[in-house]
Amino acid sequence: MQLKFRRFCRRSILAGLAACWLSAPIGPSFAQSDPLPSWNDGAAKTAIVGFVARVTQEGGADFVAPEKRIATFDNDGTLWAEQPFYFRGLFAFDEVKRLAPQHPEWQTTEPFKSVLTGDMKGLAAAGEKGLLEIVMASHSGMTTEDFDKTVGDWLAAARHPTKKVPYDKLVYQPQLELLAYLRANGFKTFIVSGGGVEFMRVFAERVYGIPPEQVVGSSGVVSFTIGADGKPVLTKEPKVEFIDDGPGKPVGINRFIGRRPILAFGNSDGDQQMLQYTAAGDGPRLALIVHHTDAEREWAYDRTSHIGKLDKALDEAAAKGWTVIDMKQDWKSIFPP
Amino acid sequence: MQLKFRRFCRRSILAGLAACWLSAPIGPSFAQSDPLPSWNDGAAKTAIVGFVARVTQEGGADFVAPEKRIATFDNDGTLWAEQPFYFRGLFAFDEVKRLAPQHPEWQTTEPFKSVLTGDMKGLAAAGEKGLLEIVMASHSGMTTEDFDKTVGDWLAAARHPTKKVPYDKLVYQPQLELLAYLRANGFKTFIVSGGGVEFMRVFAERVYGIPPEQVVGSSGVVSFTIGADGKPVLTKEPKVEFIDDGPGKPVGINRFIGRRPILAFGNSDGDQQMLQYTAAGDGPRLALIVHHTDAEREWAYDRTSHIGKLDKALDEAAAKGWTVIDMKQDWKSIFPP
Repeated sequence: MQLKFRRFCRRSILAGLAACWLSAPIGPSFAQSDPLPSWNDGAAKTAIVGFVARVTQEGGADFVAPEKRIATFDNDGTLWAEQPFYFRGLFAFDEVKRLAPQHPEWQTTEPFKSVLTGDMKGLAAAGEKGLLEIVMASHSGMTTEDFDKTVGDWLAAARHPTKKVPYDKLVYQPQLELLAYLRANGFKTFIVSGGGVEFMRVFAERVYGIPPEQVVGSSGVVSFTIGADGKPVLTKEPKVEFIDDGPGKPVGINRFIGRRPILAFGNSDGDQQMLQYTAAGDGPRLALIVHHTDAEREWAYDRTSHIGKLDKALDEAAAKGWTVIDMKQDWKSIFPP
Repeated sequence: MQLKFRRFCRRSILAGLAACWLSAPIGPSFAQSDPLPSWNDGAAKTAIVGFVARVTQEGGADFVAPEKRIATFDNDGTLWAEQPFYFRGLFAFDEVKRLAPQHPEWQTTEPFKSVLTGDMKGLAAAGEKGLLEIVMASHSGMTTEDFDKTVGDWLAAARHPTKKVPYDKLVYQPQLELLAYLRANGFKTFIVSGGGVEFMRVFAERVYGIPPEQVVGSSGVVSFTIGADGKPVLTKEPKVEFIDDGPGKPVGINRFIGRRPILAFGNSDGDQQMLQYTAAGDGPRLALIVHHTDAEREWAYDRTSHIGKLDKALDEAAAKGWTVIDMKQDWKSIFPP
């Protein structure tokens, strides 16, 4: 054990040295040492960098112990794009189409009929719950492991309708940098999203560096049984269990994380309560909103959008001094190169 | 930022060096380097040390990547004692007594009447759900933050009826060593318990080194509202939401952790499904059970106990080769000095 332990120590320390050396500033200029190169200089970047500096300064008035540096991020529209429709919705629609031959009743039953006829407006109006119902109905009776595989296969094969790239290439480069920057400063980063938790866990670790146990999302009922072969099985049931959206977000944070975040990042009215809850805690707090203002490089939408509607939370941001990221102005690049 | 980042790196590396140096073997003998000094040599210790050696040996057939080294521990009877009654039950009973003057109806309503008259057998028979109902009813309308404070105050003041020490001194020293040993070998340690998640989170980090976000437990409904002062509030409602016991344990693991553990540790039939689910995964797996066999230093109970009944899981352990810890034989000491 002794040799083993020494090897473990040596490896840990070398890994630490290597990680720091690799990401450390090489030259003297600010540009080279900038941990957020895809963020333009401006109020938003200044607010983020200043906040991180304050909460990590030992002995400072705003110092926050590392274990309390909880940062929560919405997913759709905050970490990756969500137009022309939530990607998890597009996945569910593809699945409904794929499975339709086995479900003739879907031709005449809503919301499946809308999916099969391509009525996107009706589907958008169905909201988080409608979406989750589609996902669950189209996958009920499936084991959780088979569902993971189905999502993985879809992500590998499907292409975005206009950008023509795999969906997981439409993550925001500035946010990947921010996640890494926060973690390098002792933060623990979480996703808190209205999306299905099992859907997001398939790619969150690979794409965002966020492990499954730090993904909070909506869920359907799952049942435990012992199969005919004597093996335990977890099966997805066609019933909504928890909607992690709106007031569900602080409830989900309380249930899954058990600590109030000191930083929260969203982009729509579905994030408003998470931002309120985060901002209302004692000590330093940072509430951030992505405002989709870039019709050229991404999409521009807010108060009247069916997807990622940003209306009340935008007003509250102005009233309370939350940090609003103007995508067009604040982000040097949008997607990874 | 550059200076700050260098300071961060230097500090991280120095902390790593210090942690390794402090816990590293000093002399050459096995005794000095034993990471589990409160475990007697024997089959159980050999199984644990051998398993950890196999899953951490890079290039070995049983190597498991660090992010997949998930270990789940039941709490009552596995990490701390549970006699003469689950401690979280004793907390709830104390609370019912404290709050009884404000609830005259409890004098005639079950299960409160049993609490007030000290009918412990009736309460034991009410099971996890009955207990959770008592906790929630006696704390409904309370904010989650006030609840945390109530638990903290109780833990500081209350004493065990026969051992006469604070309840959090009745944790098992061998398990504290095992948790630290697993973490030093790259495992992420979780609690997966029938106990109320908010109750356990008050002490899990301080006592076990397990942060709130790695505690999975039973829960009541919590609601989000904006108070009269404009501040967001999370309030406990008198309604059971999730029972993390029996088949609920693998379901809770799937929901909160999203990965199948490679090691699970329990002590009762309520842990049977978690152990089945853990053991049935591909690759190396370790399923462990504490058998309470030490009437002198702790308590001796199993198949017929109202508390921590161990019957079916003990049979399955024998049939499937799960590792059973004989507390009397395998543990050199029980409680911390």
